[in-house]
Amino acid sequence: MRKLKVGIIGATGYTGSELVRILQTHPHVDIDIITSESYAGEELPEVHPLFHSLVETRLVSSDEVTERDLDVVFLALPHGVSMEYVKKYAGQDFKIIDLSGDFRLNEPATYEDWYGKDHTYPEGFQNRAYGMPELFHSEIANAQLVANPGCYPTASVLGLAPLVHAGLVDPRRIVVDAKSGTTGAGIKAKPSNHFSTVNENFKAYGLKRHRHSIEIQQILTQFAGQDARIQFTPHLLPIDRGILATIYAQPNGAINERKLKSVYQDFYGPHPFVRLVENPPSVKQVRGSNFCDLFVTYDDRTDNILVLSAIDNLVKGAAGQAVHNMNLMFGLDETEGLGHIPVHP
Amino acid sequence: MRKLKVGIIGATGYTGSELVRILQTHPHVDIDIITSESYAGEELPEVHPLFHSLVETRLVSSDEVTERDLDVVFLALPHGVSMEYVKKYAGQDFKIIDLSGDFRLNEPATYEDWYGKDHTYPEGFQNRAYGMPELFHSEIANAQLVANPGCYPTASVLGLAPLVHAGLVDPRRIVVDAKSGTTGAGIKAKPSNHFSTVNENFKAYGLKRHRHSIEIQQILTQFAGQDARIQFTPHLLPIDRGILATIYAQPNGAINERKLKSVYQDFYGPHPFVRLVENPPSVKQVRGSNFCDLFVTYDDRTDNILVLSAIDNLVKGAAGQAVHNMNLMFGLDETEGLGHIPVHP
Amino acid sequence: MRKLKVGIIGATGYTGSELVRILQTHPHVDIDIITSESYAGEELPEVHPLFHSLVETRLVSSDEVTERDLDVVFLALPHGVSMEYVKKYAGQDFKIIDLSGDFRLNEPATYEDWYGKDHTYPEGFQNRAYGMPELFHSEIANAQLVANPGCYPTASVLGLAPLVHAGLVDPRRIVVDAKSGTTGAGIKAKPSNHFSTVNENFKAYGLKRHRHSIEIQQILTQFAGQDARIQFTPHLLPIDRGILATIYAQPNGAINERKLKSVYQDFYGPHPFVRLVENPPSVKQVRGSNFCDLFVTYDDRTDNILVLSAIDNLVKGAAGQAVHNMNLMFGLDETEGLGHIPVHP
Amino acid sequence: MRKLKVGIIGATGYTGSELVRILQTHPHVDIDIITSESYAGEELPEVHPLFHSLVETRLVSSDEVTERDLDVVFLALPHGVSMEYVKKYAGQDFKIIDLSGDFRLNEPATYEDWYGKDHTYPEGFQNRAYGMPELFHSEIANAQLVANPGCYPTASVLGLAPLVHAGLVDPRRIVVDAKSGTTGAGIKAKPSNHFSTVNENFKAYGLKRHRHSIEIQQILTQFAGQDARIQFTPHLLPIDRGILATIYAQPNGAINERKLKSVYQDFYGPHPFVRLVENPPSVKQVRGSNFCDLFVTYDDRTDNILVLSAIDNLVKGAAGQAVHNMNLMFGLDETEGLGHIPVHP
Repeated sequence: MRKLKVGIIGATGYTGSELVRILQTHPHVDIDIITSESYAGEELPEVHPLFHSLVETRLVSSDEVTERDLDVVFLALPHGVSMEYVKKYAGQDFKIIDLSGDFRLNEPATYEDWYGKDHTYPEGFQNRAYGMPELFHSEIANAQLVANPGCYPTASVLGLAPLVHAGLVDPRRIVVDAKSGTTGAGIKAKPSNHFSTVNENFKAYGLKRHRHSIEIQQILTQFAGQDARIQFTPHLLPIDRGILATIYAQPNGAINERKLKSVYQDFYGPHPFVRLVENPPSVKQVRGSNFCDLFVTYDDRTDNILVLSAIDNLVKGAAGQAVHNMNLMFGLDETEGLGHIPVHP
Repeated sequence: MRKLKVGIIGATGYTGSELVRILQTHPHVDIDIITSESYAGEELPEVHPLFHSLVETRLVSSDEVTERDLDVVFLALPHGVSMEYVKKYAGQDFKIIDLSGDFRLNEPATYEDWYGKDHTYPEGFQNRAYGMPELFHSEIANAQLVANPGCYPTASVLGLAPLVHAGLVDPRRIVVDAKSGTTGAGIKAKPSNHFSTVNENFKAYGLKRHRHSIEIQQILTQFAGQDARIQFTPHLLPIDRGILATIYAQPNGAINERKLKSVYQDFYGPHPFVRLVENPPSVKQVRGSNFCDLFVTYDDRTDNILVLSAIDNLVKGAAGQAVHNMNLMFGLDETEGLGHIPVHP
Repeated sequence: MRKLKVGIIGATGYTGSELVRILQTHPHVDIDIITSESYAGEELPEVHPLFHSLVETRLVSSDEVTERDLDVVFLALPHGVSMEYVKKYAGQDFKIIDLSGDFRLNEPATYEDWYGKDHTYPEGFQNRAYGMPELFHSEIANAQLVANPGCYPTASVLGLAPLVHAGLVDPRRIVVDAKSGTTGAGIKAKPSNHFSTVNENFKAYGLKRHRHSIEIQQILTQFAGQDARIQFTPHLLPIDRGILATIYAQPNGAINERKLKSVYQDFYGPHPFVRLVENPPSVKQVRGSNFCDLFVTYDDRTDNILVLSAIDNLVKGAAGQAVHNMNLMFGLDETEGLGHIPVHP
Repeated sequence: MRKLKVGIIGATGYTGSELVRILQTHPHVDIDIITSESYAGEELPEVHPLFHSLVETRLVSSDEVTERDLDVVFLALPHGVSMEYVKKYAGQDFKIIDLSGDFRLNEPATYEDWYGKDHTYPEGFQNRAYGMPELFHSEIANAQLVANPGCYPTASVLGLAPLVHAGLVDPRRIVVDAKSGTTGAGIKAKPSNHFSTVNENFKAYGLKRHRHSIEIQQILTQFAGQDARIQFTPHLLPIDRGILATIYAQPNGAINERKLKSVYQDFYGPHPFVRLVENPPSVKQVRGSNFCDLFVTYDDRTDNILVLSAIDNLVKGAAGQAVHNMNLMFGLDETEGLGHIPVHP
């Protein structure tokens, strides 16, 4: 089988680096071009020393992308920048997997409200799929543009989808208390990610207005068939990788442990990257892998359902899910190139 | 003024060590005896090297306690063990501040249900006070035995008391999603606190049945004047010290930001160790100090009240609060010996 | 090609777990049996949740090993225990790769001196190879028993071998100041590896008499053709994985930067897992991989040669090197199954 | 006694913050002015939330310094900037304690060589003392300007001074392998101090040419009465605070453990902040305190002397030592205001 010719646009961040790590050992992929505007001309290991002797590709400007005969490009770019590239590549033959937030929401107006900036390519929303393979398999398979989900929404939506889909909970009384490792905030040095700001510390941020609130809410609304209203609170963990979402929902009626478990088993049975685990998962047990580990239980003392959802934000929450999407878009086995066993400890 | 003669029973754990750190520089305290059954005969710095040249007291067996003419003893002992000491010291002149969970709940039966063991000294409950100075000032001042609150209940109850006291929220729909540093789990080496189990990791534990659930619930029920029902979920943070409780409550009626802030200001105005802060607090900004930093806000999109409460679990959540209680029990200024400025970073 | 039938003896520690992680995706390996005396009867994911849905093998007692038709067994057992298994398996057909220290030194007497216990199977030393592929390729290829090197010796010897082999330095004046992550000290919970003992901390240990001193010294003596005398000081890093050895050596005569670099290039040219890097390496740039990253430089102000050597102690320092040895022992390509790209960050 | 009126110039970094923490509880100090050019007009807790309700001083421009009637100012400014302030304040009545590197070396020429910039106030060197109280007590007491030592030199020189002073070691063959927490690199956000660069990582930096090399070397040369030549290698630890220097020296003649210990005891006997400890010290056992913990031993196998020296880089290595100097300069008890017990864990 001919290998897919792949481009990675913006390789100097954590997501770009992780895409290279995963795609480099994918049996059906040939990384044809890796771009960086700020480091064009340098070799990848000068930016990411881990790739020394492994991927010594010279970084080039994204201007060269259209000169190659690519099958697919991954956009690992900041919000706001990414939409410009989607626009620019509109007439190209290759498919696009966009890892930014620019095309994740249902419509430009919502984007402008929650992201606080104009959307310059509203046409892009027309033929895009929301790239969560467990929920939108066929849309992804047929899409030219896939909007790869946010990291928090991946953990949160996978945790809640079975409940909401089965109509078991009040979608207007859901609390998602989520905690993420620091790579989720990007590679750019800021006072908020200085080692001594984050280390031995813990805090909430983005209260009430974090952009992932609306992303979670829109997908769950679609699944619930009625308005969902999500209280989403992110926190910053002093670790590199990993998200744990602790989810609280109020049952609509009588529920029990056995019923709950079977709803999740039915929903995720055939899906290789969701593991239903028997104990509350730790983020480290999925580190470096594309798994989402889920645990669900009912508390009859308080009449609440609790869901715990753990992912690696750079893999299942970004680069791994993006490669999963690529596999679907090109008819490959969905696990191809994603067999990484978690690295623990 | 004559200094108080103080005994510390069980100095080899984190709480005992922290009691020594605080009491050693307290202007009205003379540490007369420090006990340890397992290290009797050794000097304190052999167990805790930080005290080298500072507190070179020889550790003795607790048998010697009744031979000294003490004013107060602090029990820094495991649950179940502590009640035996309270029983043994029943006829003594000195006052007791118990840092275990043995006398925190309202009655022995609840203890036996949630702690899973018999209570061997039910008489102890009669004349004990719950040692949370902001809520039970006069009871503490008059008590012979003070049950020092749990670390999670300290953060949680201080965060919720103003709301529940003012009747602003439904006490049956409260979620406390709490995260604690590892010292909260004690000094004894176990697989669950191995460095490589905790480091770069994060997980929930004690779902639905953590003992602090009932402690929080009982105090809030008392304050609400009606049954409270608390969904409490603790998580283990890869840090040494610090608790952040993220609290979600549903308002009973119309509420707004300004009203909320003023309720907290009125409630905590005169209390020196509660700081109402203008941004979500980090646990590091209170580290090493006796402060509880509180932030409250209302989300009109979801109709939820959010409270964030940060403490140092070993100080405000244990040894510092215990010394605060001692100050009240002996008529000292309540801030005496507790002027530690947070150590950051 | 028929797959090798492999046994892993002692799978519940970090080294055993890492062996499973690596061997499970090795194209020429079939993990036939995984043993544990303490967890026999349980499935592997109950001990190591990372393997959920991946390796659900039931753990059995090592008594079953001789009933299987194995090609090779890996002993991931404590020092002192391992030699008993080597003895027991002496007449078996399968080859043995021993990850303990029991057969690393040149002779039983030295073992007894430095390990402080009797050696119960001195016969084992006769046909064993020291499993450092870059130095003892042919011995390993022909051995029935391979003693897999210690983690510190791996980093230290690889860093020094070119210098000592070329006779460039005084072998009696070498300082190895080494720092290791906590997994190097094993999985058993002890006060010394309690999270709050290690976290935010750093200290030296095993001064003057750490067992790896003599292991390093023996190999270098062999290479130098004269007595080496190594000052080796290990330190405990508050990280999971990784060793950095900072090495100081005194040149025998005139030396310069260019000469130094070329000596290393000549020595390691054909070896796929040693990377000569252009900047001082960080331990994170090799994490999860089988690489040893080396940097060498000369300081003309002080007339010292400095070498920096970074490995992942669980991979190149243990399980990865063991699989590398297996590849040599069975005539496989030496990189087979070891293509893990470092996981960073 | 009248309190000293103190100014802190540059309060927004770690050293400035730590000066406030220490001086605020100093019984003979009144913090009269705290300056910041970038945050002038804001209150201190807006920059450092730990000071909420404790030190709510409004930050002002340093232009106001000369309008106050100060006794002493602390310069917590970057290298190169600090000398301008020393120059500007040359005619003022107040004394100056400079925490930068601008006046630490013996002469401007050496500064220009190692710091790579011109020195604009060479006159400042004439009447300055090197502020290491254990070594230069009387010079400090009489100085108008004190150059507060670097953090690494504090740990290194205190570790070596007794050996070099007694002529016990070859001063040309000393290796200082030092490891520091991240606060040593300052508060300014840079890629090198991004959380995910430092966390779970470890590396050497500044090989051969770190500025502290020459600072250590000059002081030891002065003490040795002959040229010292120090091989100094700093490393970055994934912790906030703490330096451990592991020091290797070659004895000039016969030496033994008992002799070594007594040399150190004689040298540091009367000095309250140097603790001679019986086991290799950890950095955490001095955290938050002004102690330097020293351990010395002799290895007869290799004929090397090993010294381990642990400090908190922000206290003994910066702000604490500066306050110690202030105490000497104003005839106060040298321990005044410095009684902080280490915060552990």
